[in-house]
Amino acid sequence: MVSRVIPVEPFDLVIFGGTGDLARRKILPALYLRHRDGQIPDDGRIIGAARSEMDAAGYRETVAEAVRQFVVPAKCEPEQLARFLERIDYVAIDATGTRGWGDLAERMRPDLAQAFYFSVGPALFGDLAERLHQHKIAGPRARIVVEKPFGHDLASARALNATLACHFDEHQIYRIDHYLGKETVQNLMAVRFGNMLFEPLWKNQYIDHVQITVAETVGVEGRGAYYDRSGAMRDMVQNHLMQLLCLIAMEPPSKFEPDAVRDEKLKVIRALQPVEADEIVRGQYQAGDGTASYRDDAENPDSRTESFIALKVHVANWRWNGTPFYLRTGKRMRARMSEIVVRFKEPPHSIFEEDTGQSANELAIRLQPNEGMDLTVTIKEPGPGGMRLVNVPLDMTFAEALGEEATDVPDAYERLIMDVIRGNQTLFMRGDEVEAAWAWTDQVVAAWEARGEKPVPYEAGSTGPEEALILMHRDARRWRELNT
Amino acid sequence: MVSRVIPVEPFDLVIFGGTGDLARRKILPALYLRHRDGQIPDDGRIIGAARSEMDAAGYRETVAEAVRQFVVPAKCEPEQLARFLERIDYVAIDATGTRGWGDLAERMRPDLAQAFYFSVGPALFGDLAERLHQHKIAGPRARIVVEKPFGHDLASARALNATLACHFDEHQIYRIDHYLGKETVQNLMAVRFGNMLFEPLWKNQYIDHVQITVAETVGVEGRGAYYDRSGAMRDMVQNHLMQLLCLIAMEPPSKFEPDAVRDEKLKVIRALQPVEADEIVRGQYQAGDGTASYRDDAENPDSRTESFIALKVHVANWRWNGTPFYLRTGKRMRARMSEIVVRFKEPPHSIFEEDTGQSANELAIRLQPNEGMDLTVTIKEPGPGGMRLVNVPLDMTFAEALGEEATDVPDAYERLIMDVIRGNQTLFMRGDEVEAAWAWTDQVVAAWEARGEKPVPYEAGSTGPEEALILMHRDARRWRELNT
Repeated sequence: MVSRVIPVEPFDLVIFGGTGDLARRKILPALYLRHRDGQIPDDGRIIGAARSEMDAAGYRETVAEAVRQFVVPAKCEPEQLARFLERIDYVAIDATGTRGWGDLAERMRPDLAQAFYFSVGPALFGDLAERLHQHKIAGPRARIVVEKPFGHDLASARALNATLACHFDEHQIYRIDHYLGKETVQNLMAVRFGNMLFEPLWKNQYIDHVQITVAETVGVEGRGAYYDRSGAMRDMVQNHLMQLLCLIAMEPPSKFEPDAVRDEKLKVIRALQPVEADEIVRGQYQAGDGTASYRDDAENPDSRTESFIALKVHVANWRWNGTPFYLRTGKRMRARMSEIVVRFKEPPHSIFEEDTGQSANELAIRLQPNEGMDLTVTIKEPGPGGMRLVNVPLDMTFAEALGEEATDVPDAYERLIMDVIRGNQTLFMRGDEVEAAWAWTDQVVAAWEARGEKPVPYEAGSTGPEEALILMHRDARRWRELNT
Repeated sequence: MVSRVIPVEPFDLVIFGGTGDLARRKILPALYLRHRDGQIPDDGRIIGAARSEMDAAGYRETVAEAVRQFVVPAKCEPEQLARFLERIDYVAIDATGTRGWGDLAERMRPDLAQAFYFSVGPALFGDLAERLHQHKIAGPRARIVVEKPFGHDLASARALNATLACHFDEHQIYRIDHYLGKETVQNLMAVRFGNMLFEPLWKNQYIDHVQITVAETVGVEGRGAYYDRSGAMRDMVQNHLMQLLCLIAMEPPSKFEPDAVRDEKLKVIRALQPVEADEIVRGQYQAGDGTASYRDDAENPDSRTESFIALKVHVANWRWNGTPFYLRTGKRMRARMSEIVVRFKEPPHSIFEEDTGQSANELAIRLQPNEGMDLTVTIKEPGPGGMRLVNVPLDMTFAEALGEEATDVPDAYERLIMDVIRGNQTLFMRGDEVEAAWAWTDQVVAAWEARGEKPVPYEAGSTGPEEALILMHRDARRWRELNT
């Protein structure tokens, strides 16, 4: 398979918070890798912007360190890195003041594509947006990129949207959810809509249920103060799990284009029913072997915030009535794994006597670790015996067959940042989507708060509270095993 | 994967024509391999019966030679062969006389399963059946096995059935079509009926068409006299291609049991429409590089018998209306290949802009060479580019994943002979099926004879006459490539 990397157009990319954690871990390594792959044109320039007083040479040192630390050694080539650093510039800036803005204005090239990455807390979004306009830095082709958390509830999300809308049109705003940049998420779109084999079966008549799991092994540790005001529902379900649910549940868009796709996702979110009290399981991790309990991490001994949540979600429309979506996400769990499982129904009738070992078809979409997609099918056990059936997984990413390119998938940030430069919003969340997801989230949160419910404790390194297993057991279903 | 070979019950198997070509090439090697695999119990005995005057020791030499010649050396182990030969006995017999029958009667063990393999011309079927009863050799548990050709037309097939019916019940008669014993044919059944993924799509709404190809590289050579009275339609389509068509087209049987399956196959044959004149292409091969023309092989310079035929067949029922089955078979073609291709329709609408290289899903069931089954699906081309789609074949037999057992599939005869001993008729043709297939065949043959049509010549080593390609081209379809 021939690599077909087509360079994007020349651009200026400004990273506010250019010395921060996200910039160092994700944004700069991703840009380096796209540079190395030939996707960044000669005129592509990256300008770090942060409070620290330093010159371009100093920032290049920061960038070089980040690349050396967060890019795999095999790809960290000194010569490539040196050339990448030539693209790097730096401006010391006050987000809430005046320092540096004139300087930044002078460096921008107004005819090129412009992107401003707001890799800072949401409290600064308004200040940055305003100053970009005040100083006439952002032209009509400017795009801004913002990260989660995008609000804390519907009201704050609305306020944030309104703030950005003062200075930017919706088509200029790129709200990142890096789950949407995963290779397998896009392969899911190709598989669903590029084949006659799946879409006709993609409905309540043939699909028994869907599972979405995002499990982490880390606790909240240093982020306790932030996390305790958020919790698993707001921190993970409202954005990541909701986005994945939308891609599975949505109707086929007429085109794989930003508004066509996002219109369909919005319809799904609006079709979500409020969740019944007995279809929610909230948990807090206990102290483990050398690890603190959630309440200790949160610094509030009486915290009622959940570090784990499992939900049975109903999408109330013609396609999905009767086919539940089970979501779960938590911290301090047994394994770090993000996976969607589409479980088909059993054939309505078995014609074989000796069908031991057979079970229903499953499409598993693995986001991490080991991105991939496999389809479990039933075949005849090979050999001279009778008609014995056996279940086997088909690799739908062809990692082996397609060789290196298939296993060496780009990081989500690589794809998403290039999409910003290309002006393609398909894999970014629109404002109304985010608000609709908050409206549903608020309703769920308010219901348990009104009931005064406390999370149940669960063992560190487990699969979460036993109640989450029961949530499926009582429907005669079970979670796919948590493993890496 | 653990091999689970369960021995069959003790048996006496008599092979009439035990020194003949079929016995030496297929039946005896198959029995040796089942012996070697542990499937034949200690009390399983094989009695050759033929005209030649020799003793058991002499016949054992014949058997040993056959095994050495037609079993791959890796499996031809002297020790195993020696033990296999201990099972072998021989009776010199006159099919149309009295010699040997008393002798055979004495050797049979009436309490065991009995099978009589009629590996002789159909002209002798009646004599053998009669004598087996006259001499009280065949008990109520006796089974007889017969090979094609089973008749030449409806009238002769009926006569043959009637002859056998004088002495045997239908449940005692095993009409072999070795295509049904192929591993992949059975895997097709498992895939169709053991998964929720395929059966709902298995209809005119989702399947564009089906292709069945049985191509041979040999000519008719020494069999010219027989073949010239038969032709490709009678010799191949009436039995092999028809059986494969039935397995693809049939409704799901309620059980994978002999009569349930055969009832469904019969319904398909009875739903076949007469074939229009312009939907039949008949051909005769020309002389090739060192090979004679069909007419020379047939010894009749004016022969109108076809050595190639292609047909567009319509199954007139709710499931298949509008989805044609294209059949083709011929001799002296480019490659030796038997394959069924189920071609799905294209998705009704493409949501992707860059869908270069995409085409419809295809399930290909390869019977020879390299038995196997693959499903062509469309996925996203891996890598950092845009949403480019690419077609890739999924191996549905898991030859690699399942290791040796999957690639080392038993020969059709191995399975079918064991099925005879087990008393399982599922993979054998019932009398009414054979008659229905002849009724349809007769109609097609009569129509072209009435029109006085001559076959068109085709190049030796080609894919058959150009007209066969046009048969599909004019429907905007094409044959899958003929390759090994």
